Amino acid sequence: MMINPTSRAVFGLRVNLSRCLRSLPRLACRSYSQKVVPLTKETYPSTARNQAFARLSSDDIGEFKKILSDKNVLTDATDLEFFNEDWMRKYRGESKCVLKPQTTQQVSQILKYCNEKKIAVVPQGGNTGLVGGSVPVFDEVVLSLANMNKIRSFDNVSGIFKLDAGVILEIADQYLAEQGYIFPLDLGAKGSCHVGGNVACNAGGLRLLRYGSLHGSVLGLEVVLADGTIVDSMHSLRKDNTGYDTKQLFIGSEGTLGVITGVSILCPARPRFTNIAFLGLESYEAVQHCFTQAKNELGEILSAFEFMDEDSQDLARKFIKQTHPLEETYPFYVLIETSGSNKEHDDAKLETFLETSMENGIVSDGTVAQDEAQLKTLWYWREGVSEASTIGGGVYKYDVSIPLKDLYGLVEAARERLEEANLIGETDDFPVLRVLGYGHVGDGNLHLNVAVRRYTKEVEKCLEPFVYEWISEHHGSISAEHGLGFQKKNYIGYTKTENEIKLIKQLKNLYDPNGILNPYKYV
Amino acid sequence: MMINPTSRAVFGLRVNLSRCLRSLPRLACRSYSQKVVPLTKETYPSTARNQAFARLSSDDIGEFKKILSDKNVLTDATDLEFFNEDWMRKYRGESKCVLKPQTTQQVSQILKYCNEKKIAVVPQGGNTGLVGGSVPVFDEVVLSLANMNKIRSFDNVSGIFKLDAGVILEIADQYLAEQGYIFPLDLGAKGSCHVGGNVACNAGGLRLLRYGSLHGSVLGLEVVLADGTIVDSMHSLRKDNTGYDTKQLFIGSEGTLGVITGVSILCPARPRFTNIAFLGLESYEAVQHCFTQAKNELGEILSAFEFMDEDSQDLARKFIKQTHPLEETYPFYVLIETSGSNKEHDDAKLETFLETSMENGIVSDGTVAQDEAQLKTLWYWREGVSEASTIGGGVYKYDVSIPLKDLYGLVEAARERLEEANLIGETDDFPVLRVLGYGHVGDGNLHLNVAVRRYTKEVEKCLEPFVYEWISEHHGSISAEHGLGFQKKNYIGYTKTENEIKLIKQLKNLYDPNGILNPYKYV
Repeated sequence: MMINPTSRAVFGLRVNLSRCLRSLPRLACRSYSQKVVPLTKETYPSTARNQAFARLSSDDIGEFKKILSDKNVLTDATDLEFFNEDWMRKYRGESKCVLKPQTTQQVSQILKYCNEKKIAVVPQGGNTGLVGGSVPVFDEVVLSLANMNKIRSFDNVSGIFKLDAGVILEIADQYLAEQGYIFPLDLGAKGSCHVGGNVACNAGGLRLLRYGSLHGSVLGLEVVLADGTIVDSMHSLRKDNTGYDTKQLFIGSEGTLGVITGVSILCPARPRFTNIAFLGLESYEAVQHCFTQAKNELGEILSAFEFMDEDSQDLARKFIKQTHPLEETYPFYVLIETSGSNKEHDDAKLETFLETSMENGIVSDGTVAQDEAQLKTLWYWREGVSEASTIGGGVYKYDVSIPLKDLYGLVEAARERLEEANLIGETDDFPVLRVLGYGHVGDGNLHLNVAVRRYTKEVEKCLEPFVYEWISEHHGSISAEHGLGFQKKNYIGYTKTENEIKLIKQLKNLYDPNGILNPYKYV
Repeated sequence: MMINPTSRAVFGLRVNLSRCLRSLPRLACRSYSQKVVPLTKETYPSTARNQAFARLSSDDIGEFKKILSDKNVLTDATDLEFFNEDWMRKYRGESKCVLKPQTTQQVSQILKYCNEKKIAVVPQGGNTGLVGGSVPVFDEVVLSLANMNKIRSFDNVSGIFKLDAGVILEIADQYLAEQGYIFPLDLGAKGSCHVGGNVACNAGGLRLLRYGSLHGSVLGLEVVLADGTIVDSMHSLRKDNTGYDTKQLFIGSEGTLGVITGVSILCPARPRFTNIAFLGLESYEAVQHCFTQAKNELGEILSAFEFMDEDSQDLARKFIKQTHPLEETYPFYVLIETSGSNKEHDDAKLETFLETSMENGIVSDGTVAQDEAQLKTLWYWREGVSEASTIGGGVYKYDVSIPLKDLYGLVEAARERLEEANLIGETDDFPVLRVLGYGHVGDGNLHLNVAVRRYTKEVEKCLEPFVYEWISEHHGSISAEHGLGFQKKNYIGYTKTENEIKLIKQLKNLYDPNGILNPYKYV
């Protein structure tokens, strides 16, 4: 029996999905007419500017203009706003200069100059990072990769793709789609983020369950070290055991070891058929059972298993302003994606899975996308949560790994703690609007979001180090995929051992002895 | 239509596979009654012992015995033979002492002592390496991980597996099989090699096409550095972006940066159904077409695509001494494995693929395994080639990556060159017996084997640097999965750039300033 769009009783479907297909709002653009984000140095007065770094002079600007031409050296205050302020509107630096090189050679010349002059540099991709890692803390120069946005080559037999660091993820994936391939990474910020930034931050995202981490799929990098040395390892080989795999160090180094200018990555064939099921469940236990069953019954075609709690969907309803895919509300929702090569087989597997899940009571309600537009709509109810969480004005984001059985416990613990501190409520008197949990169950990765009306020290003190301690007690990681950045710099000890941290510091010192790359962050 | 065991005309099958099911010879054990392997220092007189290293004294032996107890310090000449000589019988060292620690703490104490005394150390796993990386060159102490062979833990929800470095790969996989999981690595030497050695050498093997490289699946390591520092990163998290991923450096470092004592690895659910097809093809072009078609039609269930040339199967016939799966001979053979969760779907996909391949003339003949025993038999005709290639007495092995279109060209070029030099022939007058090519087409990975009756300088000079130059001209890697070891130490420049090599040397110097770990090799 195939999935029949009309036999919806099987899945308890009571909603006509076409209602959701009216045009969705575009991902929100930041509006700079909103209230001004306080300077990071004022919010965190204990972080002091490193006086070993030079202050930028007009001679330096002149030198940059010689390397780049006038138009790629931004110094106008309005032009600088975007580059100084992070996506969450939580951190703001005071850089006086943004550099936009167009070639690797230019990046090399800039870094060589800055290293000699001890000018601190913040490499920046799409500036969509969530831990304050991509913006200056003080007056660091911003090195934007936005002008390095060319696709270099694609081999449509092997699937090996080479491109500049500044190519926007969605553009890269669209290019591959035309060739029958897929970028092995996908995430909410795909319309703005750069592939180089993705690699620098070891982004995880929505396809990790199926295609694994960037440590496995990146085949080579082109990197410029702090002293301007260009290391070209843009190899096109799936296997290469000649020497230490040094490129791995730059994957997830958040711009502190070198500037990634080019990426060579292995891209899988694009699955020909995709199904999405959006399900309502009564408990977190049911979510876990649902995952085990999906692994067993969907096997090799399971490509995503995402969960969201009701608080996250409630904010999404307010943000998306469309009818939710499910008529009733449930404590938990699961989005399942299958991707395969044979529609008949895929449909049959999904149908068996859904029938069994309904019969044994794991799933209470659900809907299955019937066409490409519905696929996108259902995904948007998961992907849109990140932006929906900023609806009150700001959000504290904790992106963590926790063994599966304890995953949702952190959301409950944080909610309880904020309630006890009387910091959460429905009116403007309370800084916290909502505590929500969602994420990639398949990867043990939870996004704990605390949606706020304003950033306050009380909320921050209530959450930190509490959240990190809770994670450490439960043998988790304080950063699953977002990185350390500025936000988590001081908390690495909750996840890594002393000896691990020692190795990390040794490497930083080896590659960037003057510490000019992305200072005040990471380690 | 399902695959029908009797409808063999479809695949042109003319052979009854049950003929192949008589007991197969076990993987050959090395016999030390054979002629003595010359000492490496005599074969390569230009490599000089580093006089900075101490000569082992009886005091040192006494100290080792204090750390390990008497029985785990081997000094008897007969006991040392296995550890001094490599699997290919090409390299032989003169170590006077083999240490067999049972705990990480003991490894730490040994290394601390050796580092202080400047005693050179060769870490050794199953000693199945193919580039002379696991045996001493001179009098280095051998640190065998064979006694560290315990499974530490397995989580059967997440599939995260923690084990000592000295666990034999096949034992690890058998343990997982009982839990419904699979080790994401498989290779011919699985009955002897250690998982720690596999990680240290970044082994690729037969499952890489499906499960990716160890850089993606290893989640954590326990490593002892040259100075005895224990770095414990045995994490159980699929995602962890806190700091540089330093464990990656040890994956593929061949024991030159530290000694791996523990491995944490993500293991996928074991596919429930496996099919194997063994096919005969008329040309290398047909092999490539067959691969493209397999990717398209088998999609997510394709788990291996291996090829072998007729020379490799001819030696395998002599070695295995059983009837070959195909009655006729063909210039090329392909072994295809599918692994999936639904037998009916898998069979249908394979059948469609085989029908199409026969119809369009890509495949000339073939057979499909009907049961577990036949699966093993067919695999053995691929896996047995490595050992079959030693049938004449020795083998020069080149394990290389080359873009797919040029892959087999290297085998033809090497054969031609040896013929021109009059070094290959059917009688004992000729040092070379056969030139064979086989490997992992799916990974662009060729094994070029030159089967010899004896190792001679003439053959070596005819092959090197010719083979490396050919690979470099064709943008390949001189070591796809076997590593550099002693054999390829001087050839890294054919694959890596100067700046890459500089980074590698910096790291070696950082982690092992006295150079005591696996000297004379790698870099």
